[in-house]
Amino acid sequence: MHRVPSSFETAPAQYRHWRIELDGDVARLLMVVREDEPLVPGYVLKLNSYDLGVDIELCDAVQRLRFGHPEVRTVVVGSGRDRIFCAGANIHMLAQSTHGFKVNFCKYTNETRNSIEDACRNSGQKYLAAVSGPCAGGGYELAMACDEIILIDDGSSTVALPEVPLLGVLPGTGGLTRLVDKRKVRRDRADVFSTLAEGIRGKRAIEWRLVDQIAPRSRFAQVVTDRAHKLAAEAKVESTSGPQMGITLESLAPTIDGDHIAYRFVSLQIDRVHRTAHLTMRGPGEGQAVSSAEELHRLASRGELWALRAFRELDDALLRLRFHESTIGLVMLSTRGVQSAVLAADTALYAQRGYWLGREVLLNMARVLRRLDMTSKSFFAVVESESCFAGSLLELLLAADRSYVLDSPEVKLATDILNAGSLLASNGQTRLGLRSHDRPARVNEILARGEKGPISATEADELGLCTVLADDLDFADTLRLAVEERVSLSPDALTGMEQNLRFPGPDLSEGKIFGRLSAWQNWIFIRENATGPLGALTSYGRPERPSFDWRRT
Amino acid sequence: MHRVPSSFETAPAQYRHWRIELDGDVARLLMVVREDEPLVPGYVLKLNSYDLGVDIELCDAVQRLRFGHPEVRTVVVGSGRDRIFCAGANIHMLAQSTHGFKVNFCKYTNETRNSIEDACRNSGQKYLAAVSGPCAGGGYELAMACDEIILIDDGSSTVALPEVPLLGVLPGTGGLTRLVDKRKVRRDRADVFSTLAEGIRGKRAIEWRLVDQIAPRSRFAQVVTDRAHKLAAEAKVESTSGPQMGITLESLAPTIDGDHIAYRFVSLQIDRVHRTAHLTMRGPGEGQAVSSAEELHRLASRGELWALRAFRELDDALLRLRFHESTIGLVMLSTRGVQSAVLAADTALYAQRGYWLGREVLLNMARVLRRLDMTSKSFFAVVESESCFAGSLLELLLAADRSYVLDSPEVKLATDILNAGSLLASNGQTRLGLRSHDRPARVNEILARGEKGPISATEADELGLCTVLADDLDFADTLRLAVEERVSLSPDALTGMEQNLRFPGPDLSEGKIFGRLSAWQNWIFIRENATGPLGALTSYGRPERPSFDWRRT
Repeated sequence: MHRVPSSFETAPAQYRHWRIELDGDVARLLMVVREDEPLVPGYVLKLNSYDLGVDIELCDAVQRLRFGHPEVRTVVVGSGRDRIFCAGANIHMLAQSTHGFKVNFCKYTNETRNSIEDACRNSGQKYLAAVSGPCAGGGYELAMACDEIILIDDGSSTVALPEVPLLGVLPGTGGLTRLVDKRKVRRDRADVFSTLAEGIRGKRAIEWRLVDQIAPRSRFAQVVTDRAHKLAAEAKVESTSGPQMGITLESLAPTIDGDHIAYRFVSLQIDRVHRTAHLTMRGPGEGQAVSSAEELHRLASRGELWALRAFRELDDALLRLRFHESTIGLVMLSTRGVQSAVLAADTALYAQRGYWLGREVLLNMARVLRRLDMTSKSFFAVVESESCFAGSLLELLLAADRSYVLDSPEVKLATDILNAGSLLASNGQTRLGLRSHDRPARVNEILARGEKGPISATEADELGLCTVLADDLDFADTLRLAVEERVSLSPDALTGMEQNLRFPGPDLSEGKIFGRLSAWQNWIFIRENATGPLGALTSYGRPERPSFDWRRT
Repeated sequence: MHRVPSSFETAPAQYRHWRIELDGDVARLLMVVREDEPLVPGYVLKLNSYDLGVDIELCDAVQRLRFGHPEVRTVVVGSGRDRIFCAGANIHMLAQSTHGFKVNFCKYTNETRNSIEDACRNSGQKYLAAVSGPCAGGGYELAMACDEIILIDDGSSTVALPEVPLLGVLPGTGGLTRLVDKRKVRRDRADVFSTLAEGIRGKRAIEWRLVDQIAPRSRFAQVVTDRAHKLAAEAKVESTSGPQMGITLESLAPTIDGDHIAYRFVSLQIDRVHRTAHLTMRGPGEGQAVSSAEELHRLASRGELWALRAFRELDDALLRLRFHESTIGLVMLSTRGVQSAVLAADTALYAQRGYWLGREVLLNMARVLRRLDMTSKSFFAVVESESCFAGSLLELLLAADRSYVLDSPEVKLATDILNAGSLLASNGQTRLGLRSHDRPARVNEILARGEKGPISATEADELGLCTVLADDLDFADTLRLAVEERVSLSPDALTGMEQNLRFPGPDLSEGKIFGRLSAWQNWIFIRENATGPLGALTSYGRPERPSFDWRRT
């Protein structure tokens, strides 16, 4: 079976579509898309338009600029082609893709742009978009993900969001949101702009806040360079002492054996018949309780830092689940290992949070967990005697839709400092807070209890951490029935439901109902699974069982 | 042409499905749905299930309990049938409805439930759900809209949200949101509950916070009555002196002449050929600057209070646009009248905000404007010499997606105290704030400027209130071209775009992108208008123009 893409891993030496140029504290990230190298046949990547293959390289580049080049303070995102910045996502690619691929493609490209903003906000790097030619759709959305935008003033180059007028779809990579929320474009102007196929250029682009600066062709390169150096000079370098040279992110290269994917710390077993997957994450061994920046750097350089390696593996496994396993609806999350070793590794890592590499490792963990939150699969955490849901691994349980906990004296959970605010969900809350939103005081209660030592299954239940607590006699059957029930339900409805339950507060309810819930409902209503001839709504009350398309999007 | 429903107006004497019983400060609102009186043929309203006809009566009852019965402190929502509370929206009705009707039905029922919560929050009324039998889907969502829920403990009656397991759709009336945000049900329990077709009863329903109290059949009626009286006794009555007797909301009974609907202050002209509508709202005449609660009460009692009558008319016109005019994509908002009269009426009404009826009139205006915000049509405000966009009528311009303003000395806008916080949008912000989110300081600047007198067109432009300012030579052509362009665009994409631009801040961007924007995008991607054989995405780059289904949902 041909899987697209075959891998989410790449490295600068293998890039087909991007070029990184380093110049002290300024890096240039240049888009030079090769027309004739699309990810799959059927379209040509004209005008620096992109597909998933191009974005996987961008994601990798952003990641490597953080880990490999801590000296970089400004990243100039530009085009390596003449008179074109980026035409956005390739339309013919979209037109030939399935619904599920389109949705996952957009989700991935959104996450890449969010990772740029995460670097801007937390890693002391400024991103500067140098727009030297037409910049449309996803191209402008990429520019908006940067801190600043400089547009060439050549009488023709524009920024544009032409999706609504030309394609009848929305700009799918955060464009509308960033227009009003980030760039503070007045909402009526945002309305005009988003329906204007030809876009806006020159002074008007500045007046409307669509770009921050314009420069004529003759001075464009110099203006960009000057601004890049100015931003770099202004950047606050917030790293404590320790090795300042970057590290190379080594290849994960999982072993794939039929339906089993094995990484060093993560294993993923696909059960196609039951439409489930088992994702197991192992905790660290000894020696991860680094006592200095030097030790952290040495381990990470060798690819031996558990917190970095294990969460990179988790990230890769999640992407494979999303893109390769659309019919898998339920993922069982398990952990294995020694609790004290996780807690020691977490605590030691947290102590290095002021050191640039410690900070980056923590930020990466947080991004991976947000990738999990946004994955449209059901997640059940399964807590057994050999489990190791502690600290950073406890986040898996907190992120899960449900937790099934064996009532046994051998079962223990544990918290540590990483549960207290280092690994925030996308709404700015801790997962402990999201899980305990029914009793906010519980968050501190749980953390205080965790400081005293491992939490027994019974205590965990009292603290609201167990959805189901079952003893040895019942556990296997209870879980089996729950799994059978879960995989029998409409995947569309589950996706919509989970997106509405995973993020309690702090949006106002009315806004959430109309903007979020109704939106999902709209989608679900017109899916075959609900209203098709064999959909659940159509066949309600009839003798036939509804028939579902099991693909999750 | 048969329009469903033929009217959104009703009155207690005409109710088919609800009964109001008054007992001092406690009212009972009893659901007694007549099986054989559906709004349209094709389904039977068994088990107190509801359709739009039933919900129009509920909406009317909630409205009349506020305006007609200010003495009521507790409203008990119960069932007038034996051993059934409410089975939710009628499934067969949903299954036979178009996509557009389903979406608008849910939007309307959501607004009705929001109006219950508005009464609880702002009108000193407590709503108490007395659940005396099975309570499923929309039935439980109605109960959750109340402040408290008492469930009969008879060994069989449950509360349930069976939509996901039984129908493959979401509970569409805020159920998932209220479960976690309002009732603070733990999110993993909410997940279990929302996939449990049979629901939850008895002590577990309390433990999970699904209900507030249970009572055996023998004591149920007494427990409900006791609690209702206790809530009434606790209620804070916050009205200043003035007439305390309720008023009767008179019938609006518009004159319908072909494609023209005429109310006293509102007129709606449908242009089916161009798929546009013109909605004109007239300001008050003299005599609306009431100087006392008595005067306010006298005018309102006679149906002569402009602020109440005109906004009730606007509400009715919006509902007609939504349900009867699905192909109309663009509404031009005009105003006519004497600015000083609007400002005087607004100011006088605001002065009576402490008096119960003044408060209710203001709350109603705010609800109607929120109905406008949530209507999936494009709105262009058209400001000409005869316009009267002042104070409460200025909110129409602020709510619109764009404003086209004639550059003429005769054109004036005006602000008053009602723009400063009495008429909040659903995200808790003023429309002046939403319109000026690009420069928050502008809000006070505009209000301060407004206090000095009318604002000229040029000044309004400088203050960010004009999307387009055009002089006499250009105005008509500019507007005509903008209208032609707007009605040529995909209605799905416009709906999604408008929902993403109308509510800038304060949700965090990431959450909005994934929860809101992606959701709309999901919906749009699978609509024929985008990806059908003649959809815009499919036909991009081909010689044929895309073909659209013009119905807005």
